[in-house]
Amino acid sequence: MTMDWIAADWGTTHLRLWAMSGRRAVQARSSDQGMGRLSPDQFADALAQATEGWPAVPVIACGMVGARQGWVEAPYVAVPCPATPQLIAVPGDPGGRPVRIVAGLCQSDPADVMRGEETQIAGLLSLSPDFDGIACLPGTHTKWARISAGEICNFKSFMTGEFFALIAGQSVLRHSVGDGVAPADRDAFQTALSEAMARPERGYGGLFQLRAESLLAGLDPAVARSRLSGTLIGWELAAARPWWLGCQVTIIGAPALSALYADALALQGVPAARMSVEDATLAGLHAAYRHFRSPS
Amino acid sequence: MTMDWIAADWGTTHLRLWAMSGRRAVQARSSDQGMGRLSPDQFADALAQATEGWPAVPVIACGMVGARQGWVEAPYVAVPCPATPQLIAVPGDPGGRPVRIVAGLCQSDPADVMRGEETQIAGLLSLSPDFDGIACLPGTHTKWARISAGEICNFKSFMTGEFFALIAGQSVLRHSVGDGVAPADRDAFQTALSEAMARPERGYGGLFQLRAESLLAGLDPAVARSRLSGTLIGWELAAARPWWLGCQVTIIGAPALSALYADALALQGVPAARMSVEDATLAGLHAAYRHFRSPS
Repeated sequence: MTMDWIAADWGTTHLRLWAMSGRRAVQARSSDQGMGRLSPDQFADALAQATEGWPAVPVIACGMVGARQGWVEAPYVAVPCPATPQLIAVPGDPGGRPVRIVAGLCQSDPADVMRGEETQIAGLLSLSPDFDGIACLPGTHTKWARISAGEICNFKSFMTGEFFALIAGQSVLRHSVGDGVAPADRDAFQTALSEAMARPERGYGGLFQLRAESLLAGLDPAVARSRLSGTLIGWELAAARPWWLGCQVTIIGAPALSALYADALALQGVPAARMSVEDATLAGLHAAYRHFRSPS
Repeated sequence: MTMDWIAADWGTTHLRLWAMSGRRAVQARSSDQGMGRLSPDQFADALAQATEGWPAVPVIACGMVGARQGWVEAPYVAVPCPATPQLIAVPGDPGGRPVRIVAGLCQSDPADVMRGEETQIAGLLSLSPDFDGIACLPGTHTKWARISAGEICNFKSFMTGEFFALIAGQSVLRHSVGDGVAPADRDAFQTALSEAMARPERGYGGLFQLRAESLLAGLDPAVARSRLSGTLIGWELAAARPWWLGCQVTIIGAPALSALYADALALQGVPAARMSVEDATLAGLHAAYRHFRSPS
């Protein structure tokens, strides 16, 4: 099978590469050569190394590789804008390959930015061209984006994933919430979620209580973890209410996290469809590649 | 002046010592030999070193030195309880000095614990024996305690200080909130506070916005920091409403942080008195020392 282009998801911590034949991934590679550990003059070598043995076909990359601290800055495109990714060329075709980077999106009021998720949204629209509704992309910085008539209208970011990692990994609660290997406690998650949505400030008061219950009453770490997770996602859902109430929602994210968001939305009476990050990313990069081949 | 006892505030990160003559501190010392870096068999040496040249007088210590992972566990006393600290003896009078550790407090429903702040509350009551109202002790884990008729009735902890440190120091917002050297922006603090109190979930949505405004519009780091601080303290005040609404409040904390809480409470029409941590701690340890000398 002919390998005719290379898809790259080049984030802060990882570089993921797929040798592509049209829409199909022929081979996949992944390394820890993320943007965060590379200076601008090291990206070309990192790419050459990671694509060794692959032909000199075009590379389409999304993610933090296009940030100001990345390889070549791909300036933000302001919403509303068409979902088809905009591309910035890396000068000089490094390694004999044309390299293009997908531009992130920005919004002026309220101020917001994304870099990487726009490609997944383009993928969602490529796979479901008539999609009209909300894409929810849970992760370090969860994004909610409104999509209509093939355009990304506006979006909103929340720091839920990063807060969870900081609180569970580095605050005093790290002694109480376990390591996440134990299965989540669904009742505890749902109760904390509902309380945080109805009375967000109470959820705030409930966080140190996890530590105290752990010290005084041996609170099960899996329950504590589920309550923390329910509280944070509950705050997010309360704040994001205009983004899901009465809307068609598709969640694009890692399986376990997507399941939590789907559960939380189902509790509000909102059934959510799901799509894998890899499917969405590859479909979005493919849409960008087609645009690169035949700009319209 | 006779040195007749030694006061010790022995927390997770620091050991603070005062050579005392009755109520008066004659000399002060401080080191980084906090509980966090000592194993149980190292406390005696650490104390001997830190008190070198001081006479073999009794030591009264408060703080995490009495935790399970500390020197000798001083089990929690359940509220409601008298404000006068309860003492646990370190066996064997290490270094020829009787050493006593103040017991922390616990509450079963809702579960809560404190260790160290009970001594400051005892100090407040020692300095103002008729105090009836609320002690607010802002810090890593802010405590609100209800005091009446010489007793500590109940209390509530919030993780505001720890969250602020984690978010400002380690999340993506660290690039946007500056280092805290610049003076706070009072307008930004008050606006964020009021919004977080009125609509806590909106404040949650406003956090990533700090990063986006910083990237897109060059948001002043001092303003961003003040908005973050106003949001977190606003959530706390919303959750702690029963602890300050219509109450007499005394704030015991570091000067800059106490000023923020006093400002926030004043905005709600609640004038708050203030007391320094050192004054409260020494008065509380002195009350414990008197009790040690002549238990009633």
